[in-house]
Order: sequence, then structure tokens, then C-alpha cells
Amino acid sequence: MAVSTPPSVNSQRLMQRISVLGEIGSTGDGGSCRLALTDADRDGRDLVVSWMRDLGLTVTIDIVGNIFGTWNVGSGSPVMTGSHIDTVRTGGIYDGNYGVLAGLEVIATCQEAGLTPSRPICVGVFTDEEGARFAPDMLGSLVYVGGLGVEEALDTVAIDGARLGDELTRIGYAGVTPCPGAIPHAFVELHIEQGPVLESEGFGLGVVTGVQGISWQEVTITGQSNHAGTTPMHLRQDPAFVAATLTLTLRDIADRFGGNQVCTVGKIDLFPNLINVIPARATMTLDVRNTDEETLRDAERLIDTFCFQLEQDEGVVIEKKILARFEPVEFDERVVQIVEKHCTKTNTKTRRLPSGAGHDAQMLARVCPAAMIFVPSHQGISHNPLEHTEPSDLELGANVLLGVMLELCETTFEKANH
Amino acid sequence: MAVSTPPSVNSQRLMQRISVLGEIGSTGDGGSCRLALTDADRDGRDLVVSWMRDLGLTVTIDIVGNIFGTWNVGSGSPVMTGSHIDTVRTGGIYDGNYGVLAGLEVIATCQEAGLTPSRPICVGVFTDEEGARFAPDMLGSLVYVGGLGVEEALDTVAIDGARLGDELTRIGYAGVTPCPGAIPHAFVELHIEQGPVLESEGFGLGVVTGVQGISWQEVTITGQSNHAGTTPMHLRQDPAFVAATLTLTLRDIADRFGGNQVCTVGKIDLFPNLINVIPARATMTLDVRNTDEETLRDAERLIDTFCFQLEQDEGVVIEKKILARFEPVEFDERVVQIVEKHCTKTNTKTRRLPSGAGHDAQMLARVCPAAMIFVPSHQGISHNPLEHTEPSDLELGANVLLGVMLELCETTFEKANH
Repeated sequence: MAVSTPPSVNSQRLMQRISVLGEIGSTGDGGSCRLALTDADRDGRDLVVSWMRDLGLTVTIDIVGNIFGTWNVGSGSPVMTGSHIDTVRTGGIYDGNYGVLAGLEVIATCQEAGLTPSRPICVGVFTDEEGARFAPDMLGSLVYVGGLGVEEALDTVAIDGARLGDELTRIGYAGVTPCPGAIPHAFVELHIEQGPVLESEGFGLGVVTGVQGISWQEVTITGQSNHAGTTPMHLRQDPAFVAATLTLTLRDIADRFGGNQVCTVGKIDLFPNLINVIPARATMTLDVRNTDEETLRDAERLIDTFCFQLEQDEGVVIEKKILARFEPVEFDERVVQIVEKHCTKTNTKTRRLPSGAGHDAQMLARVCPAAMIFVPSHQGISHNPLEHTEPSDLELGANVLLGVMLELCETTFEKANH
Repeated sequence: MAVSTPPSVNSQRLMQRISVLGEIGSTGDGGSCRLALTDADRDGRDLVVSWMRDLGLTVTIDIVGNIFGTWNVGSGSPVMTGSHIDTVRTGGIYDGNYGVLAGLEVIATCQEAGLTPSRPICVGVFTDEEGARFAPDMLGSLVYVGGLGVEEALDTVAIDGARLGDELTRIGYAGVTPCPGAIPHAFVELHIEQGPVLESEGFGLGVVTGVQGISWQEVTITGQSNHAGTTPMHLRQDPAFVAATLTLTLRDIADRFGGNQVCTVGKIDLFPNLINVIPARATMTLDVRNTDEETLRDAERLIDTFCFQLEQDEGVVIEKKILARFEPVEFDERVVQIVEKHCTKTNTKTRRLPSGAGHDAQMLARVCPAAMIFVPSHQGISHNPLEHTEPSDLELGANVLLGVMLELCETTFEKANH
């Protein structure tokens, strides 16, 4: 089999399927609402499974509802791709779905071209990637790699009070294949960027090197509420001023660290929040991300030091609560290089970048060589009906996925390097 | 009559009256709720009027419900004191009430000591000083000095939908004395500081030199909402960062200007206010006050310039709305000096200071020589049931008021100087 000259995917069929799947749970404004394990999610699953069966794939469902469509060609452990088809409440039609349907397109294209890969090809559809109905996000792939126990996962309670195990049974996707699941030979996920980097810098494809680590903290600043007119500046213990100073410190950390460092204050609540009252209290969130764990810890330490200093200088009390903390994931350099090679071959402007959002691939990276391919998101908009990627970019990404998967079939990985 | 050796007020009676008036509309936790022209306000007015009649005062009610109790001694226009007895919803028992009841105590003390001032002594109780039910605040004294038309005042609608004129009639305080009212010889108001300056600096009395000008603006910053993880720092248009920068600029202006300059950001609202989303919009308030109009304008100009620069630097749009703008009021230096002399005579540590809050005296200052006396507020707490001033300080302030009023009776003001 000639890996060097793979055929091209059927772009029209791919677009058609994205569109048809997007109609299920349509929000009427170009988006989809298929929260995990709802009736809409079941309808989406049924459709994808029917397409898998049309391709002659072996369909298995595991105990947390992950779906696997396997083309049983070649020998050994499969090369796997996949993503998810659940959405947030105001989801677009590309996030997740694109990766799953491009995987099916890879198989269809090989079959039509008479190619027989040397290993089985598997497309996974992971349960509850968004975490919009059941926390945590990436739940299905996390359980698949053994990062979360099956019983704990099945007992997870939704924002609407439903139990995950009961919902799986209700929609007919409580499978029997055990978790943790079989370890693939390698894993590669194709996804829209969900950020503005590729488009704004004129790149058509992204080679994803890893996923940023995340540090989420809630900071509560308690000062002294007082009259805005009668309280001299030097007698103030002003939580709004401290919150502002901390916001600028986060920007300063991002500027000083450079690289992939991002810091965001997205939420601030003052109390009592009145024009002529120095607030008694400010509650704010700090979202700090970096691809390097040590740098992320440095940022956290700087924030701690700065908060301590602010307490001394401004006479306030600062309490911190960790809301989430994930270490960065570094993808396997060998898979990254294969992705890069196939991106570059398209003559499209290509760059390496980390993912700022979480993806199932970061869970698979715990057990096998893994990486990701990004295509541009128009204006970086995602989790929104306005989410859009050009059909030509979607086609390009699917062709890269095809080339990468065929090469992964031929690649021997001496030892995991991730 | 010997102005130099006035008798002392009856502190016990003064405290008793403050306490009895405070029971009307009691909030049960040491505070009072007597919103203007409610049943509770009527009951408070009835009580104060009964005490005026007990002193043999001539009680008149004007067309906006201001009450005047005049001791018709001497000749010429009266020396007036007074304040208000309406409260905010969670009011303390001293704000306003103290000034009115100390005025009655001055008259009672003179009568008991057989003193006969050379001019009539008048105690005014002004309608709706707090503005907590009917806007604007200081409404009664504003109408009294001709700053607001009677018809407009009577047509003012309360936060509960009631018309001011109708409420005056309903509670029996729609008087017949016309407005603008008669011009007093001089006006002096005794009030709790409602701020922490005197207590924190160890002063027992404050000579109020004027009232700060106020500039209230609402600032709306519009940027670009985006994913906190996937949007690089240099592609952000972040309203939360801009709001924080503006908050620090206000502090910087206060530091640079020094003196009486105060700046406060009391209210910030981010949208959508989520931990992992760069906000689309921030709305915040700027409260800027100074005793000097030109300096206040300088501060406003600096803010304008800085907002323009932030728009350029951060790619956001900043819209400003003026919510309130009052020029500073400077009290009559001759009255200020008389107040200062009597404060100093008590051997209590005394300082001059401006008022950060508005008071009826600033309206009277438009038509006659006027000033104020402050006594300390414990921890600066006001508009709160915890509002507190030591009985010894209340007694001291009332004695200073007595001395000042008697001297004002003897003082000839060549020409208004305010």
C-alpha cells in the first residue's frame, strides 16, 4: 500500500453529514443543542452508528456509552481517531462532530480507493466531552483510559438531577465493553481550533503540540465598606481597588512570561455594588493557563505572593479557593512530527500550537502516542451557533487526517514518549 | 446678654429625645426607617412639632412640608439652625435628627437660663433630605432657597409611585407658607460626620468648611468576548482589563491630587461574567469628589484623556454617561471662623474639614452666611443601625451650636461672602 499518495476524501459527503447531524437538536439559528445523553444526543448517536454500519464497521458500545466503529482490516491494535458529538446548550455544528465524521470519511475514502491499511482503523465517539450536562468534561475518554472509575462515572448526577448510568440505559447506550478500554496503537484527533490564532495569522492548518494546563481560582477580597464621599483615601480598605490591582497583575504575568501564557479575569462581583459605597467585598475568578507545568506553578506562586502583599498594603483579607487544576498535556513528538509532515505536504501555511481548550485526545495521550490536527475557526468563535470553518479548510483537515492515520499504521513506536 | 459665657445644654434631655424619636420607625436593631412623607415620618414630625410647641415656638409649615419652629425673641431676621428627620431605609438614629433636636435644646437652654437672644432663633426640619424615597436629595432645602420650583417638587414621584404633593396632604404636612422662604440672618447646621476622619485622627469636633463637589459617571466598555483558553493575549479586547486599569487610574488621580480628592469605583458589572470567557462588556461607575471645582474638572479631563488612550491601546469602545454633577460648596468664612472659635474654646482637639456628603446647609449657603459643625461618627459608619456617636461628643456639639448661634445673633454680615 502506498502511504505516500493517498486518495482524497469526498468533501461534499463530509459537508452533507456535518449538516445532517447538525439538524438533530437544531437551535434554529445554525447551531445545535445535544447535551450528553439527552434524546437529541441519542438521535445523533443513532445516526452516526447507522453510518458506521453502512461502512461495514464493527460497532461496540462500552460501559460508559463510548461508541467505537472499527474497520477490521490488517492486524494488531487499531489506529484510532475520534472526538464527540455532544454539544453545549448553544453549540455550533463543527465542534466534535467534525472529528467523528472526518474519521468515517477516512474509512470511506480508503474503502472506495481499494486501500487496505495494515492495522484496524477505529473511530471513537466519546461520551460527555463537553461536560455541559455532567461534570467533569471529557468524562467518556477519561473513563476509557482509566482516569475515572466506572461506578463513579455512572453515579454522576446531571445539572438536571438525572444519573448518568440511568440516562445511558434510558437512551439505549449502556454498553457492555469494559473500561478501561483496549489501548490503541496511536490516536489522532481532528478538531476546529475554537480560537483565533490560525485565522488571524493566516495559517490554514495547526499541528497541536499539547493542551494547556489550567489553574482556576476564586478569590474573595474582604475590606471595609464605607461612604465614598466621606472616607479619605488613606483610610480605605477597598476590595474593588484590590481586585483591579490583581487583574492587572495577571496581565503583567502573561506579558512577562510570554509564550503560551494566558491569564483571564472573567468574573467580578462587588458587594453591595453601589456607586457611592466603597465595597465590603469583591469576589473574582482567575483563569491561568500554560503548556508548561513549572511555569504554571510559577504563575500561581507569583499570584500568591502578590495577594499576600496586597493584604499587607491595603488592609484587606484575601481568601482563595481552587475551582479546577489540570496539568498540561504534551503530545507525543513522533505523532506531532507525522501530523506536521502531512500538514506541510498540503502546501498550506502550517504552524505548531498548543490547544487552549480540553479535548479527548489529551485523555488518550495518557495511554498511547497521540496528537491533534486543528483547522481554523472563523474569528475564533465556538460554543456558539456562529461557529464556522470554511468547507475547503474542513476538506484539507480531513485529507491530512487520512494521510496521518495511514502513516500511523506503518509506524512502529518503540516506547511511549509522552 | 453675655455671649461669652453661655450656659450648657441638658445632655440627658437631648439623649432622651434622640432615643424617643429613634423609636419611631424603629428597625429593631438600633436603627430607624422613616422614609420621607411615610406614616413613620409623619409620626416623627408630630413628635418634633409637639416639642416645639412645648417650648412656645411659632410653628409654620411651608408648601413643601418644611417645618420651622421659631422663638420670636429679639428683632430682625432669625438665626436658623436645623437639619432633617427623614432617614434612609436602614438609617441610624443620629443622622439629621441630632441637628434638629440640638436646635431645640439650644432654645430650651436659653429659656431656662433666662437668656434673650437679640434675634429670633429658628429650627428648621427640612423635607426629604435623604432622597431615599423622592429624588433629588436635599429636596426641601433646595425648594426653600428657590433652587427647584414648587410645582416640580410637588409632582416628584416616589420610588413607590406616590406623588410628593399627595403624600404631603395625606400626612397632614401640606403647609401654606410660600417658597422660596424668608432669608435667615445666618444658618448653622450641627451633624454627625458620617465619615471616619475625626475619630481616626483623634479630633473631637470638626469645623466644616464646605461640601465636596461630586462627579458621577457610568462607563460602559465594549470589547470582544472570547474563549479564555484559546485567545492569545495580544488578540484580546478585554473590558475587564480596561475596567481594572481605569480603577487604578482613579486611585492614581487621588494620590497625585492629594488633599480632599477622593475617587471610588463602587460598582462593576461584567457580561457574561463567566470564569472562562473574556467579557464582552463591563459597566462601572466612577465617583469623583473634590472641594475645588477646577480640580474636579481636572480630574474629569484626566479620566477622559485616559479613556481615549485605553480605546486606542486596547481596541475597546468606551461610552460615558453623567449620572450626577454638583459643584463644590464653600461655606462663609466668617461663619466658619465663628464655629472654629467656639470649637476651640471647648479645649477639644478641633480641625477644619470639608463634608464628603451633602447637607441642607449647602442649600442655605446659597442665600445666607452658613456653615456646619461636625461631631465624630464611630468608625465612620452611617446610614446603618450601627451609626454611633458618644453622648459626650453629642453634648459638646450642642454646646458649640448654642455658642455659635448666640454669637451669630450679634454678628453683622456686611455682604454675603460665599
